[in-house]
Amino acid sequence: MSMRSSTRTLLRQLKPRNNALTSAIPLTTARCIHSPPPRKSSSNPAMAFPCLDALESRSQTLLSDRSSPSGPEPSYTVGETQKYTCEEPLLLDWGGVLPSFDIAYETWGTLNKDKSNVILLHTGLSASSHAHSTEANPSPGWWEKFIGPGGPVDTDKYFVICTNVIGGCYGSTGPGSVDPANGERYATRFPILTMDDMVRAQFRLLDHLGVEKLYASVGSSMGGMQSLAAGALFPERVGRIVSISGCARSHPYSIAMRHTQRQVLMMDPNWNRGFYYDSRVPPHAGMKLAREIATVTYRSGPEWEQRFGRRRADSSKPPALCPDFLVETYLDHAGEKWCLTYDPNSLLYVSKAMDLFDLGVEHRRATLARRRERQEAMRKGDSEAVAAPAACTLTLPETPYEEQPESQVDTTEPSVPGSSRPPEDLIQGLKPLRDIPTLVMGVASDILFPAWQQREVAEALRLSGNRNVTHMELSEEMSLFGHDTFLLDLKHVGGNIRLFLG
Amino acid sequence: MSMRSSTRTLLRQLKPRNNALTSAIPLTTARCIHSPPPRKSSSNPAMAFPCLDALESRSQTLLSDRSSPSGPEPSYTVGETQKYTCEEPLLLDWGGVLPSFDIAYETWGTLNKDKSNVILLHTGLSASSHAHSTEANPSPGWWEKFIGPGGPVDTDKYFVICTNVIGGCYGSTGPGSVDPANGERYATRFPILTMDDMVRAQFRLLDHLGVEKLYASVGSSMGGMQSLAAGALFPERVGRIVSISGCARSHPYSIAMRHTQRQVLMMDPNWNRGFYYDSRVPPHAGMKLAREIATVTYRSGPEWEQRFGRRRADSSKPPALCPDFLVETYLDHAGEKWCLTYDPNSLLYVSKAMDLFDLGVEHRRATLARRRERQEAMRKGDSEAVAAPAACTLTLPETPYEEQPESQVDTTEPSVPGSSRPPEDLIQGLKPLRDIPTLVMGVASDILFPAWQQREVAEALRLSGNRNVTHMELSEEMSLFGHDTFLLDLKHVGGNIRLFLG
Repeated sequence: MSMRSSTRTLLRQLKPRNNALTSAIPLTTARCIHSPPPRKSSSNPAMAFPCLDALESRSQTLLSDRSSPSGPEPSYTVGETQKYTCEEPLLLDWGGVLPSFDIAYETWGTLNKDKSNVILLHTGLSASSHAHSTEANPSPGWWEKFIGPGGPVDTDKYFVICTNVIGGCYGSTGPGSVDPANGERYATRFPILTMDDMVRAQFRLLDHLGVEKLYASVGSSMGGMQSLAAGALFPERVGRIVSISGCARSHPYSIAMRHTQRQVLMMDPNWNRGFYYDSRVPPHAGMKLAREIATVTYRSGPEWEQRFGRRRADSSKPPALCPDFLVETYLDHAGEKWCLTYDPNSLLYVSKAMDLFDLGVEHRRATLARRRERQEAMRKGDSEAVAAPAACTLTLPETPYEEQPESQVDTTEPSVPGSSRPPEDLIQGLKPLRDIPTLVMGVASDILFPAWQQREVAEALRLSGNRNVTHMELSEEMSLFGHDTFLLDLKHVGGNIRLFLG
Repeated sequence: MSMRSSTRTLLRQLKPRNNALTSAIPLTTARCIHSPPPRKSSSNPAMAFPCLDALESRSQTLLSDRSSPSGPEPSYTVGETQKYTCEEPLLLDWGGVLPSFDIAYETWGTLNKDKSNVILLHTGLSASSHAHSTEANPSPGWWEKFIGPGGPVDTDKYFVICTNVIGGCYGSTGPGSVDPANGERYATRFPILTMDDMVRAQFRLLDHLGVEKLYASVGSSMGGMQSLAAGALFPERVGRIVSISGCARSHPYSIAMRHTQRQVLMMDPNWNRGFYYDSRVPPHAGMKLAREIATVTYRSGPEWEQRFGRRRADSSKPPALCPDFLVETYLDHAGEKWCLTYDPNSLLYVSKAMDLFDLGVEHRRATLARRRERQEAMRKGDSEAVAAPAACTLTLPETPYEEQPESQVDTTEPSVPGSSRPPEDLIQGLKPLRDIPTLVMGVASDILFPAWQQREVAEALRLSGNRNVTHMELSEEMSLFGHDTFLLDLKHVGGNIRLFLG
């Protein structure tokens, strides 16, 4: 085989539909693509795949955009924020170091004289610091109606700070940032992150601003983990906690749902093990699909039953393997809108940090021991021990987990989590929060952070000796919006926050 | 750029980790892969991705297997079955035709003289006809303990028939079968299928066996759709119905979960729009991940909480972006075991058929009209009208579905499906089943076919005039096994089947 023909073979492998790649196709236009006719005609014609044509076309467009010499360097950062640069290195809990780091943040309201009216607002996985419009960035924030003069988070009373988490891509240091050590982007040389790392970075900002004690630590979803983590890390510096649709330790079902999102993304050849920055096409197809899976976990079945039912996008057309039902085109659109707005590596690191979250006492002790050891090494200038562990991280066990044979499955008396006493490990782990008044809210229709997890948090807090725990659970009659309720339900969620903050 | 160097560039694009592809790596072996060192050293080392190494290694192994001239033609069919070949063409409900088709089936028990003791057992999405061991195939079946002398489905009394559905890959005609019209595999020239198509094919087998009326139509999951569909299509030929963890119409949440699985698979470049048979590497990575997502929907959070908790596969190692928690390695292993045992195209077609399932009267009327029209065309020899519709199926609407602005979201009084009266469309649609005693079972911990769907079936049947409806719902205290309960819970599921069949 000549080199020329082998090149052609490779090209065919790369581009199974060469013709679909040579021109940009508007996303919503169907194209009649016919397979080369077989020698005899088949019983039925071949199907078309407009959803794949669209993906290929997008790859092609991105490739030409990026290869143009005048093309802008892609950036996921949007909107004007304030920036704090911390020059003191941050040792991360699972190894590795950030020699210095930035935190992008925004504020609303006025800091009072003794700096005692500060509310630190923690975000969900992919949110920026833009919780509310500002003068510098007047576009509406993700909690626009929850924050403001007289609002549930009242800016007439409080000085609200929201940060982009480290690991994110909206101005804070993350995998897309440049490593000062070598001038290259971190990519997957970024170290594994934890919720504690993110919160410790936030408290560096508070130190910088001279805020000794928070009036309240408030957050939903991942932010609901962080608002608790802040209390566990710095109990003396947190006056109140609001934790909405969060948890005190990630449970395996949520881990599983995030796992599938990460795997989808990592399987996109364009992800290229994290090194897609600069001149390459980013893994937009993997990101799109990861977002579609995430969207499934953010809402509830009953809500979609009401909103979409079984309506098809175009019922005059026969069904297809590409998106067809309205709920599918909705997911497709949700993925489409998002896939180029968030850094794929940030998704991996922040999502993983959520999996690793555990406020149990055993986990805390192990973390503290590691932290001390590495601070010691840092002091001694042992850079080997400071850097992240060797790249050779074995992750698959020698013997894969085997499904239990049916006969051994005990179907007699399973105990339902949330209906029994929380584990002692968690009760002990929440002891540092004993004196912090806490509001815990959950939503019955949430499948990602199910309501039993917030019941568990509240119960463990009470059993650890906390006498100021308020627990609210929104029933299915109150909200069918599942995990997303915290973004939508001003009446119940907002109302309870207002009552609690006083 | 010479051809030689452009080939090298292409090769690099195809194989970002060339060294990982040149040798087969055992799946459970970790490898220390170091990125080429940057000019200056980075703050932290690069991560390893053993899960991606494993996938690439598998692709490589499959490629060499297939390209060896003596390599066996891959086949997904396993085990000895009986086979019925129907030479009369089957017109499919959404257009297209199977000029002839095979049905693989197995039987247990003895057919009585007047052929009145037949139970037709319908399978889940990916199951074969091998529900129980046979003399020809002694390996245990997927319902081994539910079938047998004196068992819940008692082979001392009944003659049990189980078929592989058309569209499947275990001996019945599906996308991997050869189209008699041109001698090539159908691939995605296979027409869109429906539950009705599958059941109508099954009844051709019953005709062939001379079975006029079933003692019972029994099924779980997709089979629970089909057991109802059989009653709706052939009310005079069905004596009893058992429908476990099924539904009367797919709801948008289940569609969404199947959508993500199909999309994952279709995005695998090896899927190649369905044309991966013979000499190509099948889309094993897409299949693996599709199965992982499916596995998430088959079980329940509380069960995984008990089984896996937050245990990591190897807690002596630092966390990684590849599978790490035990629940992740479990999913990884579940996908791994399955990814080469089921035909990817069968997954697409059968999963899509589930989405399209709707026993509402409006859908039935439209289907009947189309069916009559095409039978007429067939009679007249109009092959154009008989074939599937043109390949140009527009699936994305001109205007994508837009999320409602927050202010328009009505959070006041949502009605929870299953707690209100079923829609009139469904009540009317179930009228044909009015005289068929029916057992409907659901499981509270099922998220794929949630318990409100079985309540809906039972209630709609009753409102349609059926006075012999038995409805059972297994509480979370009875089963935490979610959708998979029907495979595991001999006591409650088996016990109720036995009681009902009499």
